[in-house]
Amino acid sequence: MALADRWLLPDGVKEMLPSDARQVEALRRSLLDMYDAWGYELVMPPLMEHLESLLTGVGKDLDLNTFKLVDQLTGQTLGIRADITPQVARIDAHRMHVDGANRLCYCGSVLHTHQANMLASRNPLQIGAELYGHAGIESDLEVISLMIETLYASGLKDGLSLDLEHIGIFRGLIVDAGLDASVTDRYMELLQRKALPELDLFLAELEAEQDLKDKLAVLPRLNGGYEVLERARALFAHANPAILEAVDYLDALSQMILKRFPSIDLYFDLGELRGYHYHTGVVFSALTPAFGQAVAKGGRYDAIGRDFGRARPATGFSADLKTLASLSTGSHRVGDIVVAPSGDEADLLSAIKLLREQGYRVVQQLPGDKLASSVQKELVQKAGSWVVQTR
Amino acid sequence: MALADRWLLPDGVKEMLPSDARQVEALRRSLLDMYDAWGYELVMPPLMEHLESLLTGVGKDLDLNTFKLVDQLTGQTLGIRADITPQVARIDAHRMHVDGANRLCYCGSVLHTHQANMLASRNPLQIGAELYGHAGIESDLEVISLMIETLYASGLKDGLSLDLEHIGIFRGLIVDAGLDASVTDRYMELLQRKALPELDLFLAELEAEQDLKDKLAVLPRLNGGYEVLERARALFAHANPAILEAVDYLDALSQMILKRFPSIDLYFDLGELRGYHYHTGVVFSALTPAFGQAVAKGGRYDAIGRDFGRARPATGFSADLKTLASLSTGSHRVGDIVVAPSGDEADLLSAIKLLREQGYRVVQQLPGDKLASSVQKELVQKAGSWVVQTR
Repeated sequence: MALADRWLLPDGVKEMLPSDARQVEALRRSLLDMYDAWGYELVMPPLMEHLESLLTGVGKDLDLNTFKLVDQLTGQTLGIRADITPQVARIDAHRMHVDGANRLCYCGSVLHTHQANMLASRNPLQIGAELYGHAGIESDLEVISLMIETLYASGLKDGLSLDLEHIGIFRGLIVDAGLDASVTDRYMELLQRKALPELDLFLAELEAEQDLKDKLAVLPRLNGGYEVLERARALFAHANPAILEAVDYLDALSQMILKRFPSIDLYFDLGELRGYHYHTGVVFSALTPAFGQAVAKGGRYDAIGRDFGRARPATGFSADLKTLASLSTGSHRVGDIVVAPSGDEADLLSAIKLLREQGYRVVQQLPGDKLASSVQKELVQKAGSWVVQTR
Repeated sequence: MALADRWLLPDGVKEMLPSDARQVEALRRSLLDMYDAWGYELVMPPLMEHLESLLTGVGKDLDLNTFKLVDQLTGQTLGIRADITPQVARIDAHRMHVDGANRLCYCGSVLHTHQANMLASRNPLQIGAELYGHAGIESDLEVISLMIETLYASGLKDGLSLDLEHIGIFRGLIVDAGLDASVTDRYMELLQRKALPELDLFLAELEAEQDLKDKLAVLPRLNGGYEVLERARALFAHANPAILEAVDYLDALSQMILKRFPSIDLYFDLGELRGYHYHTGVVFSALTPAFGQAVAKGGRYDAIGRDFGRARPATGFSADLKTLASLSTGSHRVGDIVVAPSGDEADLLSAIKLLREQGYRVVQQLPGDKLASSVQKELVQKAGSWVVQTR
């Protein structure tokens, strides 16, 4: 590598210089304080774990997105976490011994081998909250509410929309269809890519009843406003009852969300399979006009605890704090810098200490160092006492 | 891996459950606020970089301690940072364009392939501050003062001691000795291990003047209180003047430190070579009776900026925030939890919101979830309004 390239960062890797870092830090504190006020306890899972722990119950996508390492102490394979949610599920299942509801939150770096999309970073600062031990609709409502409050606190209220899906619809349809695993995988892959022309070709060649083929063809087209739920009810009236249950669940949940957040735009996308390998119930994501991808997402994932040997219902959300901070409209002004003269006389040092305790930012001048012209205030001695004056 | 082992962490890897995480977070905020009040700007360098960037100018120890990865996007070798200091030096040299003094601070995770000692973690949460662009003793004094204030703020005032060394003493002696590289390496290795009997054998076989051999033998034995500086002055009176300059520097610096922090124990260890590959001047570390290893350390490292193509003097310190928090005597009490009933009536939701804004921790009960017996307060409706009462 040439000398001039040494300070280039890898593709998709971002770092924060002071003005951005200040924004991230301020938002980090206000969000963690909010989670605390809602009763969510902070945990700090490690950056690196045994690969098997990191990938328990999470599926292939996360595996491909996880950097692997060899532990030189043991020869075992370690992974750098690509997602904190499964770690928190492990903590709930095995490190804490809560029988009822357990509310946890976190904020930490993750690494991705690939960028999820053009806008994504390979080193997000993941922040999120998880609620374990409750299977009802109220816990989904609580985490969705906290996610929306997170975005409101980040200044993203205008034009905020929420996408809702439910994994139960796809699963019920697959059970009805009786497709074998390889055909299911192909169908799922076409859905995930929203490759509708390819999907139609695939279905034309599929040996199945026309009624079933019609349902498989319509699923990825079931997206839009509330009317989507009515269309789904009509289409799946005689299908697997799990499908109608999922539709009813989305209906009830969306009414509860609108009651709390009347200004939010709700959008349903019943053929969306984001997180299929990992989520088990409702799946949601939030979008804002200022950003071309979801700014926060989450869902129910009741199976991970079971994979860790202790079945616990689970629901939660996460976001990239760096993205939220970059979209945030709030500004975090830096206090004026007060420049104090160099020297270590006791009265000067205690004047500096007092000012710092009062919230001033005080830099003690270093001999020979030129003051930046932006410095407006200085500490000077007048009539025997130290005072701040404008330069 | 057996199911039962899935949630075991790798050796030397630690995670923080709520009570520890709360402690770490509270200390993190108070330390970063202090650095801000001293004029140190927060930066957030990335967890992963091109290996060459991470290892520029830092020597073999850090190389061995750095996990390597292959970037699947480019085939290039990446590293997970084992130390944030060189990253901040890169930021000072190339991302910011400050001519005079530049004060930066950071707090982030690092990973180590090996534990530095029995007490060390392989995933420390490194916190620190760096001062660039000033070569005088005042900048060393400033970062040492900030390091001591960091430990005081962590509740580690009692029995705190500071070890001071200066790389110039070893370097000057090596120049005088005219030893070749392999002999120098062997000597250095014996010094780093403090392997005195082996060192004596090694020197007995070395072909050199007796006077020089005596000096090489005494160096690792020059440790103790202030009298060590006097012994060094006598021993090196006719040696390389750089040695005496280094001794004078330690003398002057120690006087300045004692003036600011009269209660601190100072200790000199002139043959200590910690950070030899990286530091260029004074090197320091802080010890407390409660912990068997240094709790914070730092020093001057003027060469890294040059390796990045822009020569900048540099001095700084760092610590593992998780260690500081675990030793910290301050307790961060959790506020009482107020349990509110489930429901989404507007007056209930606004009562909850108001309480949270007032700093209460309010959990809304989930249907069917049993309340923990530790819950002391609940939100109840009385005469048409919501009030907090003790259960």
